[in-house]
Amino acid sequence: MAKNRADKNFVPDWVHEAPKPGSYRSIFKWGAPEAFKHPNRRLYKLIKETLGLTDGDFRTRLSLGNEAVRFDRKTGLTKNRIADLRRITGNENVQTDDYSRVRYAFGKTVEEAEKLRHGIVDRAADAALHPRNKEDVRKIVDYCNRHRIPVYVYGGGSSVNFGLRPSRGGMALVMSTHMNRILELNETNQTVRVQPGIMGPEYEDALNNAPEKLGAARRYTGGHFPQSFEFSSVGGWIAALGSGQSSSYYGDAYDLVVSQEYVTPAGMIRTLDYPATATGPKVNDLMKGSEGSLGVLVEACMKIYRYLPENRRRFAFMLPTWEAAIQASREIAQGQFGMPAVFRISDPEETDIALKLYGIEGTALDAFMKLRGFRKMERCLFIGTAEGEMNFAANVKRRVKKICTRCGGMYITGYPVARWEEGRYTDPYMREDLQDYGIMIDTLESGVAWDNIANLHKGVRQFIKARPQTVCMAHASHFYPQGTNLYFIFIAKMKDIKEYIRFQDGIIDRILKYGGSLSHHHGVGKMLAPWMEKHLGRSQMNALKALKLHFDPNNIMNPGGQLGLDSGGKDWRKIK
Amino acid sequence: MAKNRADKNFVPDWVHEAPKPGSYRSIFKWGAPEAFKHPNRRLYKLIKETLGLTDGDFRTRLSLGNEAVRFDRKTGLTKNRIADLRRITGNENVQTDDYSRVRYAFGKTVEEAEKLRHGIVDRAADAALHPRNKEDVRKIVDYCNRHRIPVYVYGGGSSVNFGLRPSRGGMALVMSTHMNRILELNETNQTVRVQPGIMGPEYEDALNNAPEKLGAARRYTGGHFPQSFEFSSVGGWIAALGSGQSSSYYGDAYDLVVSQEYVTPAGMIRTLDYPATATGPKVNDLMKGSEGSLGVLVEACMKIYRYLPENRRRFAFMLPTWEAAIQASREIAQGQFGMPAVFRISDPEETDIALKLYGIEGTALDAFMKLRGFRKMERCLFIGTAEGEMNFAANVKRRVKKICTRCGGMYITGYPVARWEEGRYTDPYMREDLQDYGIMIDTLESGVAWDNIANLHKGVRQFIKARPQTVCMAHASHFYPQGTNLYFIFIAKMKDIKEYIRFQDGIIDRILKYGGSLSHHHGVGKMLAPWMEKHLGRSQMNALKALKLHFDPNNIMNPGGQLGLDSGGKDWRKIK
Repeated sequence: MAKNRADKNFVPDWVHEAPKPGSYRSIFKWGAPEAFKHPNRRLYKLIKETLGLTDGDFRTRLSLGNEAVRFDRKTGLTKNRIADLRRITGNENVQTDDYSRVRYAFGKTVEEAEKLRHGIVDRAADAALHPRNKEDVRKIVDYCNRHRIPVYVYGGGSSVNFGLRPSRGGMALVMSTHMNRILELNETNQTVRVQPGIMGPEYEDALNNAPEKLGAARRYTGGHFPQSFEFSSVGGWIAALGSGQSSSYYGDAYDLVVSQEYVTPAGMIRTLDYPATATGPKVNDLMKGSEGSLGVLVEACMKIYRYLPENRRRFAFMLPTWEAAIQASREIAQGQFGMPAVFRISDPEETDIALKLYGIEGTALDAFMKLRGFRKMERCLFIGTAEGEMNFAANVKRRVKKICTRCGGMYITGYPVARWEEGRYTDPYMREDLQDYGIMIDTLESGVAWDNIANLHKGVRQFIKARPQTVCMAHASHFYPQGTNLYFIFIAKMKDIKEYIRFQDGIIDRILKYGGSLSHHHGVGKMLAPWMEKHLGRSQMNALKALKLHFDPNNIMNPGGQLGLDSGGKDWRKIK
Repeated sequence: MAKNRADKNFVPDWVHEAPKPGSYRSIFKWGAPEAFKHPNRRLYKLIKETLGLTDGDFRTRLSLGNEAVRFDRKTGLTKNRIADLRRITGNENVQTDDYSRVRYAFGKTVEEAEKLRHGIVDRAADAALHPRNKEDVRKIVDYCNRHRIPVYVYGGGSSVNFGLRPSRGGMALVMSTHMNRILELNETNQTVRVQPGIMGPEYEDALNNAPEKLGAARRYTGGHFPQSFEFSSVGGWIAALGSGQSSSYYGDAYDLVVSQEYVTPAGMIRTLDYPATATGPKVNDLMKGSEGSLGVLVEACMKIYRYLPENRRRFAFMLPTWEAAIQASREIAQGQFGMPAVFRISDPEETDIALKLYGIEGTALDAFMKLRGFRKMERCLFIGTAEGEMNFAANVKRRVKKICTRCGGMYITGYPVARWEEGRYTDPYMREDLQDYGIMIDTLESGVAWDNIANLHKGVRQFIKARPQTVCMAHASHFYPQGTNLYFIFIAKMKDIKEYIRFQDGIIDRILKYGGSLSHHHGVGKMLAPWMEKHLGRSQMNALKALKLHFDPNNIMNPGGQLGLDSGGKDWRKIK
């Protein structure tokens, strides 16, 4: 319970107990059950000020969702069907209890968390299946296709767009339980063959420690570090086209895949391990980003890199304006000296908040920056690292410094990078703390060409800030010679989930209106599906539908709104 | 006529007149009509020695194909149809004369040249159309789709796999006549929007001279320099997935495309200009490499680079063995210091021939190399350039030097690179000279992972060398961290074209048997089509067929064997 004194040192009574096993909270809470990262004093103060709140608003927590999961809908599967599935994949790998049917049917959107807090289970799986190998998957898909049972694929469960939600019940296929192994490290080709359910930390750890764990001659890295790293799987990265925090150097998930194997209702499909080919349209590429709607990814061969942390260089700059930050990052991305790995520019609002959170605000450095003319709500933070071979990395840092200086920037050491690194995976933990008091924090992101970044930023920001008492931060963090992404974060106290959805829909509308792509690296899921045809155009959608029809003629793979393939532009929430 | 003296200074009477306008030779001759590059004395000697020939074999030229094109098959189009087409695209842009019907129906394989030498027109178009713009193309495709008239797309005509051959008559759509302009240079995004028929030199020249020609602030390069550069079009590069001689740095054609617009029988399809997205499977990517079988490319937005020739570094090394050359290039490609631009290792036979042709054999350098233990038929030549930002390029050269030295290599200056650069586009000119005396020179190429390059090289080379009196050179010239390509060149005196086809088929069989990809950058066309399903597997082929059915349900786009989509594995030569 919150402390009852109106004192200067008031700290909200953030939840610091692991959710009860079997509870709703155990499903929607981000990350490890016993891990927490509470908003620090500075962030708490900032939120109160910006959102117009007082300590009083943080005295009573809203519904925490600590109740045990229980709901009254029976599984849609007959006993015979369940018995059949048990025969396929083993007794212990078929779960039909309430908890499993919910746990593997929910991702990590604010909306899902909000529903679960109130014990609302809008959609659940009929059963959770834990296939042991690709042969299990083949039999399951075959069985489900014959009996028209929907199949949804669950990797790490970190989807933020309802990508795994079982709109139509059916199976939740949990890939991370058994199909989570490294199958083969090929040091000559610098590739690794994995099962799709392997999670970020296990994957990276095995590669970093390849000599000890895999008997290899060298250490490697996968180069893929999305914010969801700790709770997402390699298969999920491929299925939803993720992008890691070092993607500017290592590439996006799309670039990291050498070959794949899928089980589809139309049969198995395996692509080939070539570095490049000219043998017609690349089927390997068209399967990426299919978000479980064409088939189940059962194996992937990934590119890996040599692990050279000793060569890493860190750097941070303060740029005088957002325009200067864009200009500097464009010069870097087009400079033909190689790319920084971490590469991130924050807009003025995010910059000021970062300086506050990193403890730089009010220090001598801050005073010096002000003296040098870097003003609040104008200045922009640039953080980065250079990786790769030693001289290459050193040259990247030197060129970045030169360009930032030419754009009016000031070098502010590698300290902000180190502070950013501390929170790179743990910031999402704060979401539950805030939501406990009715405050929503959420993100939307978009790909954008250089000539439109300022316009997109302005248009979306204007919409978000038109809502009173709302934080709007933005950054660009994945760079290409032709453009980058914009990542918007908003924090607001919302009356209810309806208000939240309306607001979010408004942001998506604005992203499209101002020429951003519908998603840069979160994927589409069911959330963005209604905008897909408007964004891609009917002819591209028809091509996707043709692929869908080929691989999944009975629409059993992730049916009910995924990618907008079968929903006719309808809101998936209204699909029966 | 050949000189009639058996003297030491005998030189074959190479053809040095431009082919007669309207002749067969004017169609099959490589390159500009008045340009020649005859085998020099050293090459001539080598060919005689290896192929077991004497000057006597070079005294009488075989059929030169200097006759005017004339054949007895009438166009399959009725007068009404022709009138309709004239109405669509203008009178002067519809050609039904014999010459045009042949000219735009032939590519640049040895087999086509051999047929044309003998006045054999196995396939011809019913008409050549020269669309003025995408609206013309739209109307033509629409008309042809309604009337089931096949449509073949002709870019630069440099296909070496029958990619443009009109198996079923119909239209040859010539893109380079009118649709050959740069539409928009976007310096902010570093992209250029072009019509597909623009040829390599015009494209590169406009970019290099962007300040003068396009009013730009900087100079740019397209970064794409295939051997066919002078006679291939941007659209062709995309359609057949070309790879330039500097691809290791700039990327393959596949990587260079930002967005595209196609006219297909199912309608227009335009993809979007984003640097990266996560909006489902990338339709933009699945259209690349479609070789005219899904629709007609009418516009493309390409990535470009800053043009920095002043930073270019050249280097060449001699490596002691093929294994050492592979090892060095793998270390470079995986070294994470950026890639060389030109990056090429030659196998022992190609190395010895190159040293001969470059005039290095017998020099002091050659003697020194021998002294250092680099033996004939063991040593391997490595040539390369580094491009990009100045310090980046300097570091690439330094790292390459270090790695090559570690692998037992010896630096032999940039001279061999300069010599290679001289011949980079002109070597194909020698083909006609040799073929005038019944000697065939041809190439086949394959993508391959690092762990299989030695095996693939050995297997294919063994097959080629099993034929007596045959030159077999090979090199790898497009590098990736995961592998490279192998490019085989053979020279042999053949009895007739049947012998040639049998031999070529045998090589393709061996490429597949030893695990190479069916093509790395020449594309598939109709030549490799019979091997497609064996190579990709039925499930990948079925996915391609599903795309085909979607975009071109009546099979009017490049029908008759292209990509193996409609031929059931049959040899296209037997398709009626």
